[in-house]
Amino acid sequence: MQVDSTIEERLAALEAATRWQRDQIEIRQVIASYGPLVDVSDRLERSRILAELWTEDGIYDIGGVRSCQGRDAIAKVFEEGHFDQVREGMCHVMGLPHVHIDGDTAVALNYSCVMRPDGTNRFYPWRVSANKWEMVRQEGKWLIQRRTNRLMTGDADARAMLEHIDLMLPA
Amino acid sequence: MQVDSTIEERLAALEAATRWQRDQIEIRQVIASYGPLVDVSDRLERSRILAELWTEDGIYDIGGVRSCQGRDAIAKVFEEGHFDQVREGMCHVMGLPHVHIDGDTAVALNYSCVMRPDGTNRFYPWRVSANKWEMVRQEGKWLIQRRTNRLMTGDADARAMLEHIDLMLPA
Amino acid sequence: MQVDSTIEERLAALEAATRWQRDQIEIRQVIASYGPLVDVSDRLERSRILAELWTEDGIYDIGGVRSCQGRDAIAKVFEEGHFDQVREGMCHVMGLPHVHIDGDTAVALNYSCVMRPDGTNRFYPWRVSANKWEMVRQEGKWLIQRRTNRLMTGDADARAMLEHIDLMLPA
Repeated sequence: MQVDSTIEERLAALEAATRWQRDQIEIRQVIASYGPLVDVSDRLERSRILAELWTEDGIYDIGGVRSCQGRDAIAKVFEEGHFDQVREGMCHVMGLPHVHIDGDTAVALNYSCVMRPDGTNRFYPWRVSANKWEMVRQEGKWLIQRRTNRLMTGDADARAMLEHIDLMLPA
Repeated sequence: MQVDSTIEERLAALEAATRWQRDQIEIRQVIASYGPLVDVSDRLERSRILAELWTEDGIYDIGGVRSCQGRDAIAKVFEEGHFDQVREGMCHVMGLPHVHIDGDTAVALNYSCVMRPDGTNRFYPWRVSANKWEMVRQEGKWLIQRRTNRLMTGDADARAMLEHIDLMLPA
Repeated sequence: MQVDSTIEERLAALEAATRWQRDQIEIRQVIASYGPLVDVSDRLERSRILAELWTEDGIYDIGGVRSCQGRDAIAKVFEEGHFDQVREGMCHVMGLPHVHIDGDTAVALNYSCVMRPDGTNRFYPWRVSANKWEMVRQEGKWLIQRRTNRLMTGDADARAMLEHIDLMLPA
């Protein structure tokens, strides 16, 4: 039975490793889908699809704008200017995220850089922000419980949020 | 034999999971290699190496420029201005891709942001684009079958391309 | 014993695949942690935490600035202007890395784009650079042995560094 127990242990270790790696990839996929989904949201029908990245009671706390809760409120916050901006060209480039997983919850930190055309043949970085994505797995799917977004204009609260990285690094 | 069949099932599940994860990483590697390869392409010898990221009959449809097919045509499209721009400094920063795999084919969506020095001590975003990478596995290697690139200046066709994300999200 | 040896082979293949994938993810995590760690480094206490991403004798060769060696020297190089800039807003957006692993060492290439607020409601790309991350695994943890950073202002040495991509691509 020595061999069998070793095989059992090796399978269990592989299954745990594979689960962690799948989660790492799936959480990056959620973050990577935000850009395409928001940059085609020129009407409520589309921003409702975007809002499905959040849990039913999820929170989107937008730096310099306000915080809203629930998919309906999140879908509607984009009515206030965003729909028009999409038709002028808007591009949410996502920086590399750092992802820390703890069972069925996870936290990711990354930067987002919203680019807009400036009317010449150039673009300009409009909103450059830090994002803290608090994620939860529901029915096998990673959803955003809370996304906190803070402009990187030197405010101390943006830096306080980023210091969460200390808790995410390997020991 | 109960135990053995369970082990067989667990091994098969692990092998499938590992294959998907390897593919997810390898496709990101292709996209991540584009920047270094194009930003050193100051002569045909180098852009020919870049063109090997595509299949033999691959297509590169460049927004605002034109579409070209085949490695030779792709290598040569960079003669028209790009070689000189490389010597002035050019940097293709790749945003996080969303990758959807279906057997030996895959689609990735991401943004690219080409930065150029502005002659002072700053850079400016020159071309900010959406990219749809249609990939195929040939002899164990992921290659680009078609890359469609569209400037994010508000054109409806760029948004139509990005709406492909709807088909890529988990159910 | 046929079955058992097959199982042994499959387990060994899975273990090797899983190890490579974990390393691919962990190295991206190190790179992704750099931004949050540097952008909160407004004092030596914080830049010392950042410097722990390097090995004890690690090297940070900063394009246009200078090269420094050892965690203490790396922590202190940020005293020369960076601490003040952090309080004005500074954001190190990391582009997608290409990662090549060889046992307990690895090389990653990526671009970094440092964004700063321009005093209006926009940001500007300040330093846009290529980075070569030479990593080493020590006690199970990936650390930076040498990070070489070069501004993408057209200098031949930046391009020479990026041509290392040729050695990193799959055959």
